[in-house]
Amino acid sequence: MPLTTDAKGVFPIAPTPFFDDGSIDVSSIDRMMDFYLGCGSTGVTVLGQLGEASKLEHAESIDVAARVIARAGNLPVVVGVSAPGFAAMRALTQDVMAKGAAGVMIAPPNTLRTDDQIVTYYRQAVEAIGPDVPFVLQDYPLTFSVQMTPSVIRRIVQDLPSCVMLKHEDWPGLEKISALRAFEQDGSMRHISILCGNNGLFLDYEMERGADGANTGYCFPDMLCDVVRLTEEGKREEAHDLFDAHLPLLRYEQQPGVGLAVRKYVLMRRGILSSAAQRKPAAAMSAQARQEVDHLLGRLGRRDRRAAGLVG
Amino acid sequence: MPLTTDAKGVFPIAPTPFFDDGSIDVSSIDRMMDFYLGCGSTGVTVLGQLGEASKLEHAESIDVAARVIARAGNLPVVVGVSAPGFAAMRALTQDVMAKGAAGVMIAPPNTLRTDDQIVTYYRQAVEAIGPDVPFVLQDYPLTFSVQMTPSVIRRIVQDLPSCVMLKHEDWPGLEKISALRAFEQDGSMRHISILCGNNGLFLDYEMERGADGANTGYCFPDMLCDVVRLTEEGKREEAHDLFDAHLPLLRYEQQPGVGLAVRKYVLMRRGILSSAAQRKPAAAMSAQARQEVDHLLGRLGRRDRRAAGLVG
Amino acid sequence: MPLTTDAKGVFPIAPTPFFDDGSIDVSSIDRMMDFYLGCGSTGVTVLGQLGEASKLEHAESIDVAARVIARAGNLPVVVGVSAPGFAAMRALTQDVMAKGAAGVMIAPPNTLRTDDQIVTYYRQAVEAIGPDVPFVLQDYPLTFSVQMTPSVIRRIVQDLPSCVMLKHEDWPGLEKISALRAFEQDGSMRHISILCGNNGLFLDYEMERGADGANTGYCFPDMLCDVVRLTEEGKREEAHDLFDAHLPLLRYEQQPGVGLAVRKYVLMRRGILSSAAQRKPAAAMSAQARQEVDHLLGRLGRRDRRAAGLVG
Amino acid sequence: MPLTTDAKGVFPIAPTPFFDDGSIDVSSIDRMMDFYLGCGSTGVTVLGQLGEASKLEHAESIDVAARVIARAGNLPVVVGVSAPGFAAMRALTQDVMAKGAAGVMIAPPNTLRTDDQIVTYYRQAVEAIGPDVPFVLQDYPLTFSVQMTPSVIRRIVQDLPSCVMLKHEDWPGLEKISALRAFEQDGSMRHISILCGNNGLFLDYEMERGADGANTGYCFPDMLCDVVRLTEEGKREEAHDLFDAHLPLLRYEQQPGVGLAVRKYVLMRRGILSSAAQRKPAAAMSAQARQEVDHLLGRLGRRDRRAAGLVG
Repeated sequence: MPLTTDAKGVFPIAPTPFFDDGSIDVSSIDRMMDFYLGCGSTGVTVLGQLGEASKLEHAESIDVAARVIARAGNLPVVVGVSAPGFAAMRALTQDVMAKGAAGVMIAPPNTLRTDDQIVTYYRQAVEAIGPDVPFVLQDYPLTFSVQMTPSVIRRIVQDLPSCVMLKHEDWPGLEKISALRAFEQDGSMRHISILCGNNGLFLDYEMERGADGANTGYCFPDMLCDVVRLTEEGKREEAHDLFDAHLPLLRYEQQPGVGLAVRKYVLMRRGILSSAAQRKPAAAMSAQARQEVDHLLGRLGRRDRRAAGLVG
Repeated sequence: MPLTTDAKGVFPIAPTPFFDDGSIDVSSIDRMMDFYLGCGSTGVTVLGQLGEASKLEHAESIDVAARVIARAGNLPVVVGVSAPGFAAMRALTQDVMAKGAAGVMIAPPNTLRTDDQIVTYYRQAVEAIGPDVPFVLQDYPLTFSVQMTPSVIRRIVQDLPSCVMLKHEDWPGLEKISALRAFEQDGSMRHISILCGNNGLFLDYEMERGADGANTGYCFPDMLCDVVRLTEEGKREEAHDLFDAHLPLLRYEQQPGVGLAVRKYVLMRRGILSSAAQRKPAAAMSAQARQEVDHLLGRLGRRDRRAAGLVG
Repeated sequence: MPLTTDAKGVFPIAPTPFFDDGSIDVSSIDRMMDFYLGCGSTGVTVLGQLGEASKLEHAESIDVAARVIARAGNLPVVVGVSAPGFAAMRALTQDVMAKGAAGVMIAPPNTLRTDDQIVTYYRQAVEAIGPDVPFVLQDYPLTFSVQMTPSVIRRIVQDLPSCVMLKHEDWPGLEKISALRAFEQDGSMRHISILCGNNGLFLDYEMERGADGANTGYCFPDMLCDVVRLTEEGKREEAHDLFDAHLPLLRYEQQPGVGLAVRKYVLMRRGILSSAAQRKPAAAMSAQARQEVDHLLGRLGRRDRRAAGLVG
Repeated sequence: MPLTTDAKGVFPIAPTPFFDDGSIDVSSIDRMMDFYLGCGSTGVTVLGQLGEASKLEHAESIDVAARVIARAGNLPVVVGVSAPGFAAMRALTQDVMAKGAAGVMIAPPNTLRTDDQIVTYYRQAVEAIGPDVPFVLQDYPLTFSVQMTPSVIRRIVQDLPSCVMLKHEDWPGLEKISALRAFEQDGSMRHISILCGNNGLFLDYEMERGADGANTGYCFPDMLCDVVRLTEEGKREEAHDLFDAHLPLLRYEQQPGVGLAVRKYVLMRRGILSSAAQRKPAAAMSAQARQEVDHLLGRLGRRDRRAAGLVG
């Protein structure tokens, strides 16, 4: 089932589980996938920015994607294929689509500056991977240093029919969602799915601006699913209450560098990953940082029972 | 009274109040200063990054600084003097020190890259303003694109006795505070004051890492004062409870671009500023953004009575 | 006489002459201006990127501009007014226009990224300085990190009638000149003057692409005047012969950082400046660099008599 | 024969020859290698920045490297292995070292900023590829936006014994060579080979500063060999005369983007490549650019017979 512009809900960004020795932890992949499905996810994204994709050999990347796809049942799996060259991007795309991926995600190289450079890059990327492969446009200036205006996104959407989703991670980004939805309203841009990243830091209001859901790796994807659901059910204050309870931890995990260590640590505490290990080179979490995360979990546990009892 | 390395507590970053026609609103300066003093601030910083300093004529800058200083009583006033050239920096420094400023704040130009370039820049800045003027080192990579390692900060502190304070706004930044305090412990760096900026997004844990307080412009400086005080009194959970109540709004205000509009709007709602106007060119707040801020204030009002009743 | 879109020939970028103690060397300004006029310049630009403008107090800037204007006779004088804030830009513009400047030059702040940000910046700048002040658009990505496509330049030219000249310093830049002239041909952009900077590194072919002349500070502006004249007279190979003779030195002077020291040193050797001093902070020229420049001058002297006998 | 710190002379950067249909042109590889050997090269570098490495599948990269190695006889072949992740870097390194490469070249990712980040990156890279693989440190700020001070290079050289060569492409860069050689003199840094890149734009004076030769892809590597040889023989003015004759074309080819097209075009004109084709996506050379290159070749042919008769 290819990814379409109708995608909604929560696509967690899956981390790649490793054992302490750096080898891939396949059983954790399975457990993680079962957890994602169990909590109401509507899709999954692997080998994204925080999936440690750059530390995987090509064959390992294919294996990880294949395992995720096999365990995802009917849910669409998106695979990150960003690469410094179109040859590597095409090779990875062909391999994962053959394994059953629903689409791929492409981030812009951080050398792009002008509007035309950005649009041209995506045209060339589509030429490389083929026009029949659905792709997700990743818009994350904080990490990639590439700034796409709503007009640039519209040009990409209008030029490239295989663009079906925006992974919206601009910051600030609320007005951008409104601008894109206004383009759809005035007929100047076709509809696409907008799922929000950046750890969901503004998911509460992004949903109200017209986003279709979340596409991020926060260590409580079940909370993301609930917030999306509550918002759709019109239970606004309940959605905010739940979101606000998580915000102190979510903000902590959103920090670049240390964030992935926090995420894996909490997923381990939750029993989803067997280890919090990252493959080298990795930024470790200091003892004090761990105490802070434990403290945040302890406080969260008083407002969301899913966080209760995770730390001694 | 010159600024010293003993500075502690909260130095709000003062916005520059304007009337709707762009002229400076002097009575709002007075009211704002009275508010700062009344809620327990221990100093004030003017003409910082979000003080719209670049929209002021030189003479206006002096007038604003002078007014703030006159109203600050015994509290130290720090004036931002960052400038593209050392001539302008020196001229502004001389003028505000003559008016009674306690020190100046200097941000690095965003062309600096290597460690040596950064250290050299501050050496030259001190040569320009004179070694007797206490200065605050502003470390804000998110805005200035200049990355200072703890070692670089140590070099600046050790080389330049007039460096008395770090405005700490690195992100992530908790480990940096720990690293700097460890330098002090092992005797490789003299003690300096560390006050935290970046809208206080991590003030809760920064205090626990060894920061001396806050130096930022969040629209509830009274909350910042309370969090610093509660932490110092050892009331850890109370401090976190109060901080967490504000985090949804604080995060919203921390957004670049729209943040200043939010800040001024809330200060107006609180009766501190007579207008939320920015001098042109300015990023306006959309109607929907205003509704979101009102919503955030409404929710906050249920947990902090200072926010209650601010919006209809 | 205001600057117009008909500007042609060579506008040297004037350095600011200092004595060794850092004070402004007014008699060197006069001598330099007489030299510029004597060798066929058609205008002059002061307080540009390499005019050490950021080291001048506001009053000094006005004085330097006024002196240059007074000595320039009927030639138009353009003054660089780039500033971090529109207030300073407006103040400097008003002061120098009152002194008789023909127009101002505005470089983009290096924070601009998207096409819209660039266009908006120039709109706001014109709002600040007034729509009646002719301005030069400076396009120098190597120094300012701002990339303007031909389309962006066209938008600025079409939106802002007071844009009369492009200081073309993109690199590579030959195709950009062709693109802009093609816009004029197809009627989608009105005509503007294009003068070339970047030390004239491609002036030979830029003239053949449709540039109107040079606007740069190379230490032999008389060579620039000759190359422009020879090209206009159709003496192509003569123009290239002269240009190529200078290319080794021109390339050396084009280096960022050390370039200004080389320029001032040669102008001193030529008897135009009384000192090669820069105001602090300045990148000095090493002994070996001076020997290299002397060597380059010695070799040049065998092909251009104006360089003969300058060094022992 | 592994690459050592004694490397001298000229290591041309080999382009990857393609047929017009994008397939690899093996016979041109052979012809190019024979030409390099015949004109006095002392080594070769493949899959560098302008070797279109990012457009090659992994297997193709290995094939190209293997073919070059097979044809290089006793000459050392360096292979570019820069990659976004250490897994890909290690895989490519292992494969090409197994094929007989003498060492690898590693460029820094353009996200590095602080001194520590740069040093750490190279430590991690050596950990990934193994400490027994000689590597070339590529220092090219203009392209990679990473600025390495002489002190940083010294730290890398001292920490990592497998660093045997610096591909020096900083600009300006003359003082950097002097600084590094001074480190060797004062005993604070062990000796390494320094070969110059950046198309050889300052090779004339770089040799006099202490460089060991050139490591760049200019379309007349035979000129580079002559300049290096003449300098070593003490024929200074002859070396400069030859260099200066090529400078107009060399400067033209040094332009980013269009440079590779120029290089391949001239190599085709010289009968070394059968086609000037680049694999897509590629920046084409305009008709006018080709006329300019022809003009430059025509003029060069009057001073260097190797360029004579290349264009009709």
